[in-house]
Amino acid sequence: MILNLIKVHRLISRAQLSKLSKMSATSISRIIAELINEGLVRETGQTSSGVGRQAVLLELNPSAIFTIGVEIDREIIKAAIFDFSAKSITEIHQSTAVNNSDPNEAVDQICSLILSLIEKTANEAARYCSVGIGLPGVINSDEGVSLFSAQMNWKNIQLKSLVEERLGIPVYIDNDQKVKALAEYSYGSAQNSKSTLFIGIGSGVGSVLMVNGNVFRGGSNSAGEIGHTTIDPNGILCECGRRGCLQTYIADWALIQEANKLSPTQNIDQLFEASKTESWASSIINRAVMYCGMMISNAVCMYNPDSVIVSGSLVESYPELITMIEEQCNKFVWEPYKDTFKIYSSELGGSANLIGASVLATNKYLEQ
Amino acid sequence: MILNLIKVHRLISRAQLSKLSKMSATSISRIIAELINEGLVRETGQTSSGVGRQAVLLELNPSAIFTIGVEIDREIIKAAIFDFSAKSITEIHQSTAVNNSDPNEAVDQICSLILSLIEKTANEAARYCSVGIGLPGVINSDEGVSLFSAQMNWKNIQLKSLVEERLGIPVYIDNDQKVKALAEYSYGSAQNSKSTLFIGIGSGVGSVLMVNGNVFRGGSNSAGEIGHTTIDPNGILCECGRRGCLQTYIADWALIQEANKLSPTQNIDQLFEASKTESWASSIINRAVMYCGMMISNAVCMYNPDSVIVSGSLVESYPELITMIEEQCNKFVWEPYKDTFKIYSSELGGSANLIGASVLATNKYLEQ
Repeated sequence: MILNLIKVHRLISRAQLSKLSKMSATSISRIIAELINEGLVRETGQTSSGVGRQAVLLELNPSAIFTIGVEIDREIIKAAIFDFSAKSITEIHQSTAVNNSDPNEAVDQICSLILSLIEKTANEAARYCSVGIGLPGVINSDEGVSLFSAQMNWKNIQLKSLVEERLGIPVYIDNDQKVKALAEYSYGSAQNSKSTLFIGIGSGVGSVLMVNGNVFRGGSNSAGEIGHTTIDPNGILCECGRRGCLQTYIADWALIQEANKLSPTQNIDQLFEASKTESWASSIINRAVMYCGMMISNAVCMYNPDSVIVSGSLVESYPELITMIEEQCNKFVWEPYKDTFKIYSSELGGSANLIGASVLATNKYLEQ
Repeated sequence: MILNLIKVHRLISRAQLSKLSKMSATSISRIIAELINEGLVRETGQTSSGVGRQAVLLELNPSAIFTIGVEIDREIIKAAIFDFSAKSITEIHQSTAVNNSDPNEAVDQICSLILSLIEKTANEAARYCSVGIGLPGVINSDEGVSLFSAQMNWKNIQLKSLVEERLGIPVYIDNDQKVKALAEYSYGSAQNSKSTLFIGIGSGVGSVLMVNGNVFRGGSNSAGEIGHTTIDPNGILCECGRRGCLQTYIADWALIQEANKLSPTQNIDQLFEASKTESWASSIINRAVMYCGMMISNAVCMYNPDSVIVSGSLVESYPELITMIEEQCNKFVWEPYKDTFKIYSSELGGSANLIGASVLATNKYLEQ
């Protein structure tokens, strides 16, 4: 608890710790002495301002404890070692067909990647407190199980315990969008926001609401599936088997499907290239942008967030979309919500998953 | 705090109170003695089960403290005295054009209604701890201000302090849909639900999400405006000035507008009467029912509730709609959400607002 207080406040005196924790000055001094002795906390040169005796400020020693962040997706595994201030120390990527192999193989690969990372840092004194993993699909984060992932072809994989068995370090897992939202809240676009809506647009469309830094999970950890809200009961068939889902107007595969009605189009880059000269291509993109604006306006009606982060492969590849989406959103948004929220692009971009996985690991360690 | 624990547990022993409150047995005995002396708590005949010495169970004395619930709408003010178990003791209704008169007049009427109620109960020993008021519109519940109500033509009315000044009893106010949801959670359809979605369908369409008994308010207390999510950017003009809001398919005025394209229709009852013989009328109703089902499915995607309560004048007048809406919802709902939630009709119906206002008053009193 004391570690957590120091982390949240960054710089704090023993007297403030005593006040906030409602523990006696003696107990605090004893705990701090232990933590300093273990190298987890250090005294800074700075002293507290304000009236009364000046007190030495304490901070976490960021390089005393390390966490390991892991990102898994269809065809790649990434792992990185982070210090306690979420600074990446070493990082490693490995292309591998996670979606086409036995999950046990993926677990083996994750573990050997982590072990090679630890070897690379060559710091014998380093302590690795926990591993965080962010991966697509439906996750039971309490029990550490990947319940279902279409992307990786996984069903009921006991990821947490499989990795823990091999490494002997506590492991925590969560959905990739949720750890990304956690990263943006902790170190990115949404710092200090009380209610943040994180929207990811790419091969699917999903959202994560964060309330005071906690993911809003709903009754069965499945809140935020905005891409599968129905817009038109007679609309285009969605990959989920239903018609007119919002993502059928926005997801990359939907745009490519549309494009192929007029001209052979392999991927989203070809569509954007075509949009420079062809009006049919820019019309497809403009419609998607309009629906993105409408989607944000609708999410604002439901969640009333103070900030909205637009993320995902589409806006990461084409950042100019953010301004276009914002303009469209302004046309849709209902008067009472004007000026109640701001739209941000993801500050951490492609690093958000790894950083978020490390934040998950850190938070869980401090919660113990 | 002790009163609150007794209220939540209904029947509880001193030993359990001591354990839950982390206070010593001596302190608990002293506090309970005071509360019994003041008549707020009483010993029941029952004793605790389980191993160990049998302990006398305590309960709140429901008729020791009373709260007053008030409901205000366009053309009516209702007030009722409730005992601590939310049983209505006396109730009074007054028709009055709240929407066409000076808000100060409404405040005068509320206060004289309450005073006449207190007189009627003729119980000199009765203590009135607080007043709760549920009213339509945008409310700042922390400061007790009716910020904006189209229904009553109010803007920035300091309702809490105006009533408190005249009565000398603490007053708490909240939006009518929110107090209704609170009533259903506390005494109606949603008891023991962890995440409840309350949907009201009538002249407007709105929703309230309750998470563990607390209203989810969003960043500026405006979450849940599902009726103003856009379904069709080129749709029918909504009363909010935008096009294609979900409520333009569902709200009573929208159905009457549609009906009048074919046959003069004054109100929703005439439409339902016509639907017995006229296919155009039943087609209007069936479409509205379909959109209600779609709306619930969409809300489930966003909030992932474990229970959904469908309420409001439309389903209260025509309860057969609930089954029809449920059938439609089943057609829309995405596979992963099947069996994660249940749809209920409002158990408290027209009394929900008054009961909820009283629950608000009780909760605020116990929070002190």
